[in-house]
Amino acid sequence: MGTQLDPEYVRTLRSDFAVAHKLLSDRCLYESAKWSAEALNGLPEDEVDDPEILIPDELKQLDQMSSSERRQYMLAKACFDCREYDRAARILEHCTSSKCCFLKWYARYISGEKKREEDSEVILGPLDGDATINKQVILIIDEIEEHFRTVAAAVYDPFLLYLYGVALIKHKCDKLAFEPLTRAVNIYPFNWAAWQELGRCVQNVDQLPFVLSQIPPTHVMSKMFEVSTSQELFQSTESVFATLAQLENIFPSFLYLKIQRAMLCYHALEYDDSAKLFDHVVREDPHRLDDMDMYSNVLYVTE
Amino acid sequence: MGTQLDPEYVRTLRSDFAVAHKLLSDRCLYESAKWSAEALNGLPEDEVDDPEILIPDELKQLDQMSSSERRQYMLAKACFDCREYDRAARILEHCTSSKCCFLKWYARYISGEKKREEDSEVILGPLDGDATINKQVILIIDEIEEHFRTVAAAVYDPFLLYLYGVALIKHKCDKLAFEPLTRAVNIYPFNWAAWQELGRCVQNVDQLPFVLSQIPPTHVMSKMFEVSTSQELFQSTESVFATLAQLENIFPSFLYLKIQRAMLCYHALEYDDSAKLFDHVVREDPHRLDDMDMYSNVLYVTE
Repeated sequence: MGTQLDPEYVRTLRSDFAVAHKLLSDRCLYESAKWSAEALNGLPEDEVDDPEILIPDELKQLDQMSSSERRQYMLAKACFDCREYDRAARILEHCTSSKCCFLKWYARYISGEKKREEDSEVILGPLDGDATINKQVILIIDEIEEHFRTVAAAVYDPFLLYLYGVALIKHKCDKLAFEPLTRAVNIYPFNWAAWQELGRCVQNVDQLPFVLSQIPPTHVMSKMFEVSTSQELFQSTESVFATLAQLENIFPSFLYLKIQRAMLCYHALEYDDSAKLFDHVVREDPHRLDDMDMYSNVLYVTE
Repeated sequence: MGTQLDPEYVRTLRSDFAVAHKLLSDRCLYESAKWSAEALNGLPEDEVDDPEILIPDELKQLDQMSSSERRQYMLAKACFDCREYDRAARILEHCTSSKCCFLKWYARYISGEKKREEDSEVILGPLDGDATINKQVILIIDEIEEHFRTVAAAVYDPFLLYLYGVALIKHKCDKLAFEPLTRAVNIYPFNWAAWQELGRCVQNVDQLPFVLSQIPPTHVMSKMFEVSTSQELFQSTESVFATLAQLENIFPSFLYLKIQRAMLCYHALEYDDSAKLFDHVVREDPHRLDDMDMYSNVLYVTE
């Protein structure tokens, strides 16, 4: 089943996702790095050995920094890995390279999220949920804007654009976030986290055609976005299933896609198909928890 | 102050600690990677740019694996970074390379530690502390021993030897742990975690000379170990202060060494000197928490 794939295309994707895993891990975007690694492992098997991971020049320039800044980056990254976010941010305080700036602001964002969680009451109190704010967000927005004023728009760092979008959404400025997020995915389409944030900007199905007109046409990541966003908007249409089938042809073992299909079946009230797909995922990767909360709903209705 | 340092020696150390940061991060040994990065940042400033991080061939062979195993490693590493330890271990279940085996067993060890913490009662109950065991440990010991039976002793992986030592200590076999841990630090001296575990095997000061006879003589990491172990055994002797001074000459801004000096002063009842050193550390890196519990003791006695 499935149309014949060009082995060269598969090899290019293999390299793209391996590079993404590296770039995202370097920036402590762990969830997005995990998604890339899962996509990589979802591609068809290949007899040919993978080439060494070579980062293309235009992405390599995002890693440019002085030797002393590189040493500070290494310490800050290690602190972040040890969950010492404030310490990581302070180590990078005076750094100017965009990679260090990203990690500095991202560490402060995570630290702000942790403090917000601590400050918010358990449930249903006056400080529950959205009432408690991440106090770092407004400062991060200001500093990223200041940073962007110092560089030419042509050399915008897609990871900084992504983080700017995250902060704007957190600050309830979803409309303002749309522009930096679309720019981020156009410059570098392989950061899944940026697509997920872009998905948050799509409130209803009427907005989808405009959003799709703003992203790289025909790119495999655009198709992933189309399927995932349509699924979240309960669009179990033939066209969505067709795009999903194309992707499943490229990534025959990518469990994320299996789950998208399971959810689309669920929305289409095809509960037995949905349960079978979820069951397959559980057998393949029993400790995979992402998106599995829906499985209990499916089991409930099929009982 | 301090004798003149050979700039070539400093450059070699810079490269050694940068490589260590990479090898340790790759294996999710975050605390040890952080210590290496702090040591790297503690070396004197250098006008010359750092060379690219080049991993020596004998260490590169520790990273050897097939393409498909490398892809599984990338996914497992990402899962570990997302704290999905059981999932990481399962992804690597059938891998045979020593790097993948390390990450598989280390993930299972950490998962076992988490479950042990959950099982143990809060405090002072019958299941408190050591009464609850990490159920993975005995399995990991068996599997590592089985793995070692399949490879020539000459190609033992120092990270696996380290993990074997950790598991043996956890299993209350401190004496058995001594041999693999000394072997680990002799093969690869730049994993600080291995030295820390070796330090646990030294119960009293009488054992120290024998231990020191088993490690690489004159190596900078052996000196670090000598100072740290002596300090933990309350040996504020002239000879220890002399070794510490040598290290401070090589690493003028390494806060870990400042703390060793502060602790040695504390043991020697020189509380004011100790307080001044701790105060310096707090000003330099206010969010650094490691070893800072002693500072409150010092402040208490100097009040």
